[in-house]
Amino acid sequence: MKAEILAVGTELLMGQIANTNAQYISSRLPDVGIGVYYHDVVGDNPERLKKSLELALSRSDVVILTGGLGPTQDDLTKETVAAVVNRKLVLNQESLDKIKNFFARTNRQMTQNNVKQAYLPEGCIIVKNNNGTAPGCIIEEKGKIVVMLPGPPSEMKPMFEETVIPYLASKTEYRLESRFLRIFGIGESTVEDKLMDLIENQTNPTIAPYAKEGEVTLRITAKYPKDGHSEDIISPVEEEIRRRLGDAVYSNDNSSLDQVAARLLMESNTTISLAESCTGGLLSARLTEIPGISGVFDRAIVTYSNRAKMEELGVRKETLDAYGAVSEQTASEMASGVRKVSGTDIGISITGIAGPGGGTEEKPVGLVYVALAHKDGIIVRKLNLWGSRSRIRNVTCLNALDMIRRHLLGMKDTC
Amino acid sequence: MKAEILAVGTELLMGQIANTNAQYISSRLPDVGIGVYYHDVVGDNPERLKKSLELALSRSDVVILTGGLGPTQDDLTKETVAAVVNRKLVLNQESLDKIKNFFARTNRQMTQNNVKQAYLPEGCIIVKNNNGTAPGCIIEEKGKIVVMLPGPPSEMKPMFEETVIPYLASKTEYRLESRFLRIFGIGESTVEDKLMDLIENQTNPTIAPYAKEGEVTLRITAKYPKDGHSEDIISPVEEEIRRRLGDAVYSNDNSSLDQVAARLLMESNTTISLAESCTGGLLSARLTEIPGISGVFDRAIVTYSNRAKMEELGVRKETLDAYGAVSEQTASEMASGVRKVSGTDIGISITGIAGPGGGTEEKPVGLVYVALAHKDGIIVRKLNLWGSRSRIRNVTCLNALDMIRRHLLGMKDTC
Repeated sequence: MKAEILAVGTELLMGQIANTNAQYISSRLPDVGIGVYYHDVVGDNPERLKKSLELALSRSDVVILTGGLGPTQDDLTKETVAAVVNRKLVLNQESLDKIKNFFARTNRQMTQNNVKQAYLPEGCIIVKNNNGTAPGCIIEEKGKIVVMLPGPPSEMKPMFEETVIPYLASKTEYRLESRFLRIFGIGESTVEDKLMDLIENQTNPTIAPYAKEGEVTLRITAKYPKDGHSEDIISPVEEEIRRRLGDAVYSNDNSSLDQVAARLLMESNTTISLAESCTGGLLSARLTEIPGISGVFDRAIVTYSNRAKMEELGVRKETLDAYGAVSEQTASEMASGVRKVSGTDIGISITGIAGPGGGTEEKPVGLVYVALAHKDGIIVRKLNLWGSRSRIRNVTCLNALDMIRRHLLGMKDTC
Repeated sequence: MKAEILAVGTELLMGQIANTNAQYISSRLPDVGIGVYYHDVVGDNPERLKKSLELALSRSDVVILTGGLGPTQDDLTKETVAAVVNRKLVLNQESLDKIKNFFARTNRQMTQNNVKQAYLPEGCIIVKNNNGTAPGCIIEEKGKIVVMLPGPPSEMKPMFEETVIPYLASKTEYRLESRFLRIFGIGESTVEDKLMDLIENQTNPTIAPYAKEGEVTLRITAKYPKDGHSEDIISPVEEEIRRRLGDAVYSNDNSSLDQVAARLLMESNTTISLAESCTGGLLSARLTEIPGISGVFDRAIVTYSNRAKMEELGVRKETLDAYGAVSEQTASEMASGVRKVSGTDIGISITGIAGPGGGTEEKPVGLVYVALAHKDGIIVRKLNLWGSRSRIRNVTCLNALDMIRRHLLGMKDTC
């Protein structure tokens, strides 16, 4: 089955947002054996939407529309689709009740234009929205499938997972399964170099590397019958890759390094505290994004000023004077300091120059020290990073998370 | 002039990356008077690319292609475009020299397949690439303009800015300018309700609302002659909107609430410290993303445990016992506590239940208190938020930033 994703919204054509919905949906459809052949974006314009939809229906089996289901005048997706597939819009009482409830629950006034959202094409399958007011729907028409979902990702994603994916899975015979090997500490060209023969001779599974800030992901994709298994196709290839890349591979279920480190902390019941300077709480924010972390996460102290480093963490004035705030010595005292004041098993510290200002010849932008204090000692990584403030902060966090992972798994620390 | 952006790359259809190139180019074209009417994505498939390009040329004046200019076998954009517009590919010696130089400069071996990148359609305008090996090009054909640029944003963006934008500006007579009014504290349907007559009667400028997590953006777009001004068209409308929405409008230059609050802190030299619980350092990470904030940002203390709240912030055990960690009373003591230990002008605290676990009937997921302690007192907001852990944490930060903004501008606090 061929799918096409048609996004509706002038805000996309104005560049106000990126089409992350198409990315999300595209990443999930292969799991139910559906390949994505086209993405399209049109504005809130019924004429152009109509033509794009007709084209999509002529070349694809499944057309998934996102956006344009809101309560306002320029939300025209439902009306336009209904006209193309020749259906009437009828009031769906259950959806109306759900919308009324939603407003009541969130203590807001329901305005008249919200009623429009409860009108749906006759004979459709309703896709419930538990996180907003616009229901979605699925229409089967002349062997084709049209799916409409709202634009906000926080509404679209759960609707897609809860209703659309199970529905599409029931309609397909093959499955594509991808396993994502995530890699930290080796660059993309080195990864490709080490795996060149595997990548070039691929048929089933296929292997593709993809690099993003500081990390590489390898996608291994197998095609197999709905009632078959992908394991025999993927596993031998994964084993060979792991043999070549070693413990730089940190997950094979698309878990982020954040999730891997948090999981290891929780599983081993290792308590942690953080002392952050140039990352300004970013590592803390990322770790605490993981549900359940509160059992092991005690506290984080963001010490931007030298005074705060001394007061909160017990960094010695002599150390700051002799070596500066961005130094191996200060990083070590920050890590052991936060470990001591919070009484946790490990203490992590970060101090560096994230830029754009603040760099010198001796200590340039991108110089960062990360330290991990544990009961038997302190490990320090010195990093020389490049790129924007945001990239430096991100890659610094990845290094800290990798240090946590390696420490808890008893691996040798590398930089 | 109507533009269409056609991205080429299977990695987009697999969902490995979002089409941020289309977003970037779309945000820039209106500056030279060009409206974007369509985005399309096709894979590395010459048949489908050919059809999509033919369609694009039939309905748009300018077609900008990104991706598929690399050295490998599956990079087919140039060959396909050349066939559609009936041009030969010819070796461009200057581009070949540039590629050779690039490899020499970055100390890498140039492989034979890189020579392919120096072949360009006959009679094209070459778009130089100073950050990679693939040159781009511009072709004028039967009154239409076709632009080809490489996929990596770090190469595409400078090429677009240095060559494509000046070229397009010379071809157009009108300009489009957009002003973005960003709004916090009123929902999208209420905004539309208050502005319905303005939105319905729009011609020039046009007005469009766009909602994202917890916020609304209004885009006001004016069309004006190349040598004219947009100010007279936009300003009266902006004034009328501000009259109706009041101080919920927090910026008109597309600055985020993070940037607005940080700027106000820096301009007024107001020092700040944070005590975060359920947001786990996210507010701190966001504020410290802004360059220059170190002048006023003293520290943030992320106190997940009750023990840390007492030790670090001086929250009283009796308060925690009587009212619990998520309460107005604890929020107040956290805010004044962090203000006191750090000696800053204001102290912000956040305590709440971000979910998914941890909610009770009395204190459900989404209940959050945000407090701002200043020299004359404490302001507390009680929030009842909905949605995912990530949404609750984000909207909580927006509320804290709005409190900072209102406090520093001497506005009444609202929730």
